Amino acid sequence: MREIYLDNSATTRVCPEAAQKALEIMTECYGNPSSLHTMGFRAEQELNTARKAVAGALSALPEEITFTSGGTEANNLAIFGGAWARRQHKRIVTTAIEHPSVLACMTQLEKEGWEVVYLRPDHFGRISPQQVEEAITPQTALVSIMAVNNEVGSILPIEAAARVIRRNKARTLLHVDAVQAFGKLPLKPGKIGVDLMTVSAHKIHGPKGAGALYIRKGVHIPARTLGGGQEKGMRSGTEALPAWCAFGAAVQALPSLSQEESAIRTLWKYCREGIAAIPDTVIQSPEDGLPYILNFSCGGVKAETMLHFLEERGIYVSSGSACAKGKASHVLEAMELPKQQALSSIRVSFSRENTLEDAQALVQAVEEGMKTLVRAKN
Amino acid sequence: MREIYLDNSATTRVCPEAAQKALEIMTECYGNPSSLHTMGFRAEQELNTARKAVAGALSALPEEITFTSGGTEANNLAIFGGAWARRQHKRIVTTAIEHPSVLACMTQLEKEGWEVVYLRPDHFGRISPQQVEEAITPQTALVSIMAVNNEVGSILPIEAAARVIRRNKARTLLHVDAVQAFGKLPLKPGKIGVDLMTVSAHKIHGPKGAGALYIRKGVHIPARTLGGGQEKGMRSGTEALPAWCAFGAAVQALPSLSQEESAIRTLWKYCREGIAAIPDTVIQSPEDGLPYILNFSCGGVKAETMLHFLEERGIYVSSGSACAKGKASHVLEAMELPKQQALSSIRVSFSRENTLEDAQALVQAVEEGMKTLVRAKN
Repeated sequence: MREIYLDNSATTRVCPEAAQKALEIMTECYGNPSSLHTMGFRAEQELNTARKAVAGALSALPEEITFTSGGTEANNLAIFGGAWARRQHKRIVTTAIEHPSVLACMTQLEKEGWEVVYLRPDHFGRISPQQVEEAITPQTALVSIMAVNNEVGSILPIEAAARVIRRNKARTLLHVDAVQAFGKLPLKPGKIGVDLMTVSAHKIHGPKGAGALYIRKGVHIPARTLGGGQEKGMRSGTEALPAWCAFGAAVQALPSLSQEESAIRTLWKYCREGIAAIPDTVIQSPEDGLPYILNFSCGGVKAETMLHFLEERGIYVSSGSACAKGKASHVLEAMELPKQQALSSIRVSFSRENTLEDAQALVQAVEEGMKTLVRAKN
Repeated sequence: MREIYLDNSATTRVCPEAAQKALEIMTECYGNPSSLHTMGFRAEQELNTARKAVAGALSALPEEITFTSGGTEANNLAIFGGAWARRQHKRIVTTAIEHPSVLACMTQLEKEGWEVVYLRPDHFGRISPQQVEEAITPQTALVSIMAVNNEVGSILPIEAAARVIRRNKARTLLHVDAVQAFGKLPLKPGKIGVDLMTVSAHKIHGPKGAGALYIRKGVHIPARTLGGGQEKGMRSGTEALPAWCAFGAAVQALPSLSQEESAIRTLWKYCREGIAAIPDTVIQSPEDGLPYILNFSCGGVKAETMLHFLEERGIYVSSGSACAKGKASHVLEAMELPKQQALSSIRVSFSRENTLEDAQALVQAVEEGMKTLVRAKN
């Protein structure tokens, strides 16, 4: 049976270029960049290449890139560091639909006496520029808003946030969790006025265990992992070269964003229209979202039941966010969907490895599933 | 020219078993362990296998192992977490010769009002059991002592520390940075009474970017990286499967410790005696240290000069610790060696890939180097 992997927002298959680079680093260029001999120098050069690749994809300077073990570490570094750096005003603005690695930091900061304002989305997971503009006061220390929501694909108004911060002439820091947008939407944090931006390798066919935080030149936040002073002191520890250099290779292997987006949009549109036409389903992703993610509800059929029905046909999807195993989705809850509908939600997420045949197989299987499972239920 | 890599305490070449496992995970078993479908389940199984391997090497339970991005992260987690968990007594006992990732945490805790006692070594980098016993009072929150020093190879009295804590009947936590001992000395933290133990993959032919913290069952410390709750909430973030599973494979590929130790001891003894016989050199590693590390001074020849002389002959060694690039070694300083002698120090570190020919080539090259470079200097 052909396997159809449609859970690319959870994680992706590592592309050959990245896998090959990791292998080369592990077995040939295995020096420690801190070593003073050639083996160390070669390793450092490989790391520089990777850093330039990630920086290039963000139109940033290499020295603005701090490698981390992934998106979660980068989010923790940005939020705790950013809050500390601007602690005169203990007020943060974020959204109710951020990734758990952002929300968990916020909960911790609330315990430490911070006021955190959570912007609430509409029924499609959208936050309006007006909401952002009204919430960000000059007395705001930090704003943390994701670029694209990981469960429904809504695109958030980060440019509006940057604009109001500029207008306020305040020292507010702007952090953007761009894990789901990186490699999919053009991102120029420096140009639009983002101070801190989180990206991750394993959502763009790089390995798990690699991410980065863009820290705009001139912005200073304290490190959270202390030691030998690697990553210009921002993140100590022997550099994770296999994963980081593979991250660089995965970035270099990215196709043209607009060409890929257009190809993916064809699949997304096909699935969106096909699934919308199946009785009892509800499309929950916004029309104007990123076409890599399609979230829909299967009427009264429990998400896990549908997930396993699809799996038996070789199709892998997600029920809500993979990061919230078994838990009700806080995103769908914030969207105020009826509970029954939320618990019936499936997330399909595409990558450049998917084809129209995959999309056709999905729609057909969901249709069969709805017929079989709704009948079984009644 | 044959390359002779004698910098294995800085980092090692990844063994074929580990590299193969990482590749397999990246390209075949690339699911997210949090996903509810088979791809996620397979990934979770691979992670369990790795966890069992690391636990097994410590005679620990799998649930006592928290994977991290490396030794530095594990040390930060243990020290900040351990200190917080026992914050009734703001007193810590450690040594002056710990790794920078331990010392940097201590400096931070001192800023936050903690008293930190630094035990000082003898001229060979040794700390005596008596020193440890006298320093650890019942009012001590945390003790952090490395198992083996990374620059000179001295073995520290961690069992004495465990003994005095037991005798005190106090709630003192004992953390051991075992990065240089893991895979080389038998380690049974649970049996001897260690609460927290740091290990790392890339010193035992696993990849950079993987480490673990052993947390004894019943010991509770707060997490430092917050989010999706992976690693039983101790360390959030998508699991770094390629590196962590490769870590497990590297552990499984470890030869019998005693057999390897005996083979390495032959090389160490050969080099120790050969270099000691060269005029003006001083052996700085203790007789009773771990035979994987040999530290010596080249009289008045600057370490970097000797390092490059050896490098031209294809021999890679370290000047002091690779983690303190360019800086004077805090370990040799604590050993109270004359400054000139410390600045002439070379660290040679072996692995199972080294042969007697490597040792012979080293001794011969050091001898030539001393003749050539001392003459050039005079």
